[in-house]
Amino acid sequence: MKTSPAFLIARKRDGKTLTRKEIRDFTHGVTSMSWTDAQVGAMLMAIYLKGLTGNEMADLTKAMMESGEQLELNGIPPCRIDKHSTGGVGDKVSLVFAPLAAAVGIRVPMLSGRGLGHTGGTLDKLESIPGLDVSLSVDRFRRVLAETGMVIAGAEARMVPADRRLYALRDVTATIDHLGLIVSSIMSKKLAVKADGLVLDVKTGSGAFTGDQENARNLCRTMVMMAEAAGRPVTGFVTRMDQPLGMRIGNALEVEEALAALRGEGPEDLMEVTFALAEAAMELARINGNQSDHKHALRTAIDSGKALEVFARWIHAQNGDARCCEDPSRLPRASLTQDLRASRAGFLTTLDALKIGLAAHAAGAGRDRPGEPVDPGSGVVLYHKTGDRLQAGEPLATLYSSNAGRLEAGFQHLARAVQISDVPVKKEPTVLFRIDRQS
Amino acid sequence: MKTSPAFLIARKRDGKTLTRKEIRDFTHGVTSMSWTDAQVGAMLMAIYLKGLTGNEMADLTKAMMESGEQLELNGIPPCRIDKHSTGGVGDKVSLVFAPLAAAVGIRVPMLSGRGLGHTGGTLDKLESIPGLDVSLSVDRFRRVLAETGMVIAGAEARMVPADRRLYALRDVTATIDHLGLIVSSIMSKKLAVKADGLVLDVKTGSGAFTGDQENARNLCRTMVMMAEAAGRPVTGFVTRMDQPLGMRIGNALEVEEALAALRGEGPEDLMEVTFALAEAAMELARINGNQSDHKHALRTAIDSGKALEVFARWIHAQNGDARCCEDPSRLPRASLTQDLRASRAGFLTTLDALKIGLAAHAAGAGRDRPGEPVDPGSGVVLYHKTGDRLQAGEPLATLYSSNAGRLEAGFQHLARAVQISDVPVKKEPTVLFRIDRQS
Repeated sequence: MKTSPAFLIARKRDGKTLTRKEIRDFTHGVTSMSWTDAQVGAMLMAIYLKGLTGNEMADLTKAMMESGEQLELNGIPPCRIDKHSTGGVGDKVSLVFAPLAAAVGIRVPMLSGRGLGHTGGTLDKLESIPGLDVSLSVDRFRRVLAETGMVIAGAEARMVPADRRLYALRDVTATIDHLGLIVSSIMSKKLAVKADGLVLDVKTGSGAFTGDQENARNLCRTMVMMAEAAGRPVTGFVTRMDQPLGMRIGNALEVEEALAALRGEGPEDLMEVTFALAEAAMELARINGNQSDHKHALRTAIDSGKALEVFARWIHAQNGDARCCEDPSRLPRASLTQDLRASRAGFLTTLDALKIGLAAHAAGAGRDRPGEPVDPGSGVVLYHKTGDRLQAGEPLATLYSSNAGRLEAGFQHLARAVQISDVPVKKEPTVLFRIDRQS
Repeated sequence: MKTSPAFLIARKRDGKTLTRKEIRDFTHGVTSMSWTDAQVGAMLMAIYLKGLTGNEMADLTKAMMESGEQLELNGIPPCRIDKHSTGGVGDKVSLVFAPLAAAVGIRVPMLSGRGLGHTGGTLDKLESIPGLDVSLSVDRFRRVLAETGMVIAGAEARMVPADRRLYALRDVTATIDHLGLIVSSIMSKKLAVKADGLVLDVKTGSGAFTGDQENARNLCRTMVMMAEAAGRPVTGFVTRMDQPLGMRIGNALEVEEALAALRGEGPEDLMEVTFALAEAAMELARINGNQSDHKHALRTAIDSGKALEVFARWIHAQNGDARCCEDPSRLPRASLTQDLRASRAGFLTTLDALKIGLAAHAAGAGRDRPGEPVDPGSGVVLYHKTGDRLQAGEPLATLYSSNAGRLEAGFQHLARAVQISDVPVKKEPTVLFRIDRQS
């Protein structure tokens, strides 16, 4: 009686703080379907409007994490460090981070997702590698990790079922953009993988969840707090997503750029973010040496070809065609192209991440509904980033698509993504803040 | 796109006032099922926490009223006055009001409901009359009204379908007790009957929706405002429900008391409320004369036997056994009884309406879930009201039930309903406020 759905909804409706047991009852009701959709919808709105305390968020995160199976890494030697990004345009950091960290002795177990809307998904990117299998059993997940030092796969349906239902209902009830609900959704999934530590990349800018740096910092701080509440060592970063990360956007195009990065030819912003995360991972893993030693070790892992070698071994372990690593032309590439050229001379002041994401999406790289296929070879190749000086008529970007209608639709977005001015703009660092513990 | 459910939910979530079109889109989505339960639950909570303006309430009431079929009274000569009560314990006013008003020339078309929990329902009370049919087609509803001057029946399933769904969802999402949702639910149903005027009886006290007189006054004021917004002349009353109305609680017992009232033997409080409503109805119907003339006409309708005669004709028209009017022993009466006696001498200070309602309910007069049958002959007969001086050991009430276990369960409540003190308490009038227009 005391913990009936209506009773708990009324408590949150009236601004009360729910106890750990009440949060657990709610989460259990979500998972077991004993709470109806109407009740979950009402509770989500009450939470949205009345908020969650830090303790409530931590309790919700833990209860959601425990709502299904967790991924134990018994038998895999430490140190096992997971990585998470809140998602952006051209964000292929995971594809570089994982082999790079593995090359310096860290084990990287990652559960990733698929793209929806203008942000890509790591699984979609990886599936552009011919044959690569992202759906692994738990046993195979552990085996690949043990053998290659890294593993990237989709989450099992049995993991965090509470989030699966809550997320679907938040999507239709205008309760997506609430800090506590966002954090508990992300962190319950991340913490269900039993790693020894976690590095977080919270994006801010037009192509990210929030354009407000303070919101992003707050989100990052709260995620760090939740990880610590669960006893998981963690370092978080807030990084810019005003323009796309790197020069390539789209599934196979991003894999190509990741391969280039592992060959030492990565664009500056991508390498800045990847190194920041990898250095933090080395600290969490207590790998000997100071920051400069870590930087040197990472640089050596690339220069020696070891990071690329790890990636190739890993692709092979998940049934992919590892020859792509030496010959990226084996990756799919869409046949239709259209160039965007500078309308006039000047400085590139804006290269809007959201609009470029929408361009790639419209060209075929993204999906509108879960389950839809993507066109792996479509997307955008950039030739300039903001701050660059441009000649009138020079190519700024090429849009790729397999379909003329989609190419045209994508180009509408692409053409609107660019602003050129006479006044030079400063190039800014991409990593904005680092957050090591709740503060 | 602009009026997608999530968009409208977000507007209300952010405290915006919804336009008439938006309220209509919401109501239509509820009726057509294009809004999911989760979305309706979230919207109800957003409304609960962010409120509805007077205009939003009026728009919602109208949109709900128009969500299904409305009951047109074409062909029935004016003046047609409907009556509504928010419900209480022993509230048989409708059963006296309808024939009394009809006897002075008003047509009374009433759609009524069934009881749930501790409050009884007019349809359940009427069904204790052998043979009486409360499920009428629209044609028969109009015919009975034309022939006898009154009609009382259950609402058609096709009327106000939006309310049917909203009410069921409010019940499980802790969004019942919100003024705007309550008022739109009540008034959409009342206004769907196309009468020329409406009298309202808002109860306040332990046996009513609210024990707070200011809340009740506010509810009454808002209901009056909604009726006026719909162009329906209206008068509202706030009346006491601290103790039951009249001396009899339970289905057949209340019909008996209504028959007594129509014979001129009604208890004071029941007659006070009934006359107040009937006088207001005569004013709304613009029947010639001043208040004193109206009172006299009503008194004459009872003394002459005309009101009872209308009631008998009406019972006959709905297939009931009209001989009950002359011989109430034809009504069912439960065979098991238990008397509650005064534990000591003194003044009766409390006769708690809620607890007596629960006693009658437990004895068999009520139901816990829609659709359950009721025991028509069970209930409570009172011998005293608050303010009365009592002898030690004298009978205060008799509980009736058809089942020994239920009798015992009911008596537990009944015994707790009474307080006796040495200090006399004043008898208060039952009608507290009259509200003629929004003020």
